[in-house]
Amino acid sequence: MSIHNDAQKMIKTIIADNMPRTAVENALAAHNFTGKIYLVAIGKAAWTMAAAASDFLGNRLERGIVVTKYEHSQGDLPKIDIYEAGHPVADEATIAATAKCVELAQSLGEGDELLFLVSGGGSALFEKPLEGISLEDIQDATEQLLRSGADIVEINMIRKRFSAVKAGRFAQIASPAKVFAVILSDVLGDRLDSIASGPAVPDNSTVADAQKVAEKYGLELTDLQRKYLLEETPKTIDNVKTVITGSVVTLTAAAEKVARELGYAPTVLTTTMNCEAAEAGRLLGSIAADTHGGRNSFARPCAIIAGGETVVNIKGKGKGGRNQEIALSTAKSISGLEDILIFSLGSDGTDGPTDAAGGIVDGTTISRLKDKGLDVDKVLGDNDSYTALGAVEGLIITGPTGTNVNDVTIILCK
Amino acid sequence: MSIHNDAQKMIKTIIADNMPRTAVENALAAHNFTGKIYLVAIGKAAWTMAAAASDFLGNRLERGIVVTKYEHSQGDLPKIDIYEAGHPVADEATIAATAKCVELAQSLGEGDELLFLVSGGGSALFEKPLEGISLEDIQDATEQLLRSGADIVEINMIRKRFSAVKAGRFAQIASPAKVFAVILSDVLGDRLDSIASGPAVPDNSTVADAQKVAEKYGLELTDLQRKYLLEETPKTIDNVKTVITGSVVTLTAAAEKVARELGYAPTVLTTTMNCEAAEAGRLLGSIAADTHGGRNSFARPCAIIAGGETVVNIKGKGKGGRNQEIALSTAKSISGLEDILIFSLGSDGTDGPTDAAGGIVDGTTISRLKDKGLDVDKVLGDNDSYTALGAVEGLIITGPTGTNVNDVTIILCK
Repeated sequence: MSIHNDAQKMIKTIIADNMPRTAVENALAAHNFTGKIYLVAIGKAAWTMAAAASDFLGNRLERGIVVTKYEHSQGDLPKIDIYEAGHPVADEATIAATAKCVELAQSLGEGDELLFLVSGGGSALFEKPLEGISLEDIQDATEQLLRSGADIVEINMIRKRFSAVKAGRFAQIASPAKVFAVILSDVLGDRLDSIASGPAVPDNSTVADAQKVAEKYGLELTDLQRKYLLEETPKTIDNVKTVITGSVVTLTAAAEKVARELGYAPTVLTTTMNCEAAEAGRLLGSIAADTHGGRNSFARPCAIIAGGETVVNIKGKGKGGRNQEIALSTAKSISGLEDILIFSLGSDGTDGPTDAAGGIVDGTTISRLKDKGLDVDKVLGDNDSYTALGAVEGLIITGPTGTNVNDVTIILCK
Repeated sequence: MSIHNDAQKMIKTIIADNMPRTAVENALAAHNFTGKIYLVAIGKAAWTMAAAASDFLGNRLERGIVVTKYEHSQGDLPKIDIYEAGHPVADEATIAATAKCVELAQSLGEGDELLFLVSGGGSALFEKPLEGISLEDIQDATEQLLRSGADIVEINMIRKRFSAVKAGRFAQIASPAKVFAVILSDVLGDRLDSIASGPAVPDNSTVADAQKVAEKYGLELTDLQRKYLLEETPKTIDNVKTVITGSVVTLTAAAEKVARELGYAPTVLTTTMNCEAAEAGRLLGSIAADTHGGRNSFARPCAIIAGGETVVNIKGKGKGGRNQEIALSTAKSISGLEDILIFSLGSDGTDGPTDAAGGIVDGTTISRLKDKGLDVDKVLGDNDSYTALGAVEGLIITGPTGTNVNDVTIILCK
């Protein structure tokens, strides 16, 4: 079987093994529900997680609400209201749907139990700004931070402080009901207070931490925002039990398993790669070329796996995503080599503002780009990886997958 | 023994194993000299290489010339004239010393043999500009390229074309004598035409390649420089035999060996790491943290080794070097962890424009920086790694080592 067939098989298996359904079923089977069960599901995988819970719980479920990204609902679910809203930027639909969730949480009493299903994207899809703060105020702060290259932990640290439902505040609203939180994590290192900005988790970040981030990126805020930034978030919450059912760790584990099955000796380098995308590609490209040339410790055939979520500091006007940039920036190192390829994949199927899940390159990529009149350094300088990879059959297209557990980059060498 | 003692032992052993003397002796022992022997040695290790050759050849050596960096000569050598000159920027002393070498080469006849010892730094230490070109013209082009973040291969590709001795032209001058070139390589991937700009090697780069580099970095040139950039360099040379005696490959091999002896299972990731220094540090920091936490494939105790030479795109006004930036930018990832450290080392003992060979960090580095009022992100943004590491005993000071085979970064985890 060709190495490209192996890669395609790996991509399919990695995604399939990280679908939310099985994970949710396992989490629910291990939990002892004691009261009336209500459900709130937020995030890009909310519909899939809620569907799994609905199937599992059947008539035991009293009522539920799903808030997911536009076009991420896959149909009606019994007793569950489904809302779609804006992502990565929250919109009025976010506010309206979240208000329904807050209403439901407020209605719960002693003995009730709220099953809270959380997946990536929850930060944008679940929002009720504090009194006097507008969605635009929060969006403005978010956009300033995104533009400055802040990471997701830093962005959440700021914006959760303008919210009535984040940083543990949603769990407080649900009290005295118990909350059972089942989490599909898209935050590296599984920091619970960062996943969807932790609506049901005591906040680990302090006023001082938030001040530091604001200062680091020269964040411009309104006076009211400045005041809220000085208010401390809940540090203890006693009505919540939390389980993480999937994360980048299970993503890289799936890659490891399928690589071994296909005859490639796997090495997982990291599950927390968070540096700049193109530079990650350059370093992984060096590792790839030296693996091919027998100049390092990895014996062929092998698969070298790096999980995480890199950042792109946008300088150009092109179209692309972090996984496409990683893949493209490895291409020079392996140019001209056979029996080697490198691909990088966003598990949610949506890499940056594109319809690709990521990129895949091999030893022919650079010369094929040249044939199309494309210089890889210029392309990367213009952040135009989507266009370039599209011209040389280098895009991975999966469509939205229904899961969201970060990214994985894989060097495959026969 | 503490992990810091292990690191100090590794640093000493890695350097000692890569000293030029043994390498030169081995190369000469394997060569059959047939004529009168003359010597030209250029580069930062020129004195040491010439001393080894002088001891080996004794009275068989007719006459020789050493051109090395200021303060890199270690005393008189019999029958050898020793010159010191500017590095990394060539100066008038470079021109004067190189003229002596050209004179010697021109004086050689049929049956004579020129032992040509080449080490890193040779590009700046060996220079005769073409007619009408000034050293300032070449320096200006070099500085433009350095500022733009061009790598050493690209810089050499341009400046060798303004030279009467580079890109194979020195070997042409020595003809009809034979040239035996013994090379200590500081160019990743051992591209012979790049080491010291290849005075005795046919040039692999073409006019088209050079034009592309000039365009890529928006290089500003004089009319005469533009004309010379269009003249092709020698593509075949038949009077030269070349041997590479040391390179980053032997550097990482030495690290691997001493790591194993100290009880750390070694993995060499790459010998061609050439991405941006701070981003390399961030990725290696992720690998380090995951190694410590058992979230990847490397079982403790282990040593993870990356050889190469990274680049720094200078944005700030601080003082530092690429190895110091790598080390410092890993520090956040391992902050608070025990039994782990990371160091990065330039084998020549001179990292950037500092008196340090590199940097070393551990789990206490970040908190010690904070105690001194230093924020690691601000420090890196200002390219001020030397000052910060100096404040927390994080500098590696070896003094000039006499060898120059690139850099190595090592994660040590007990």
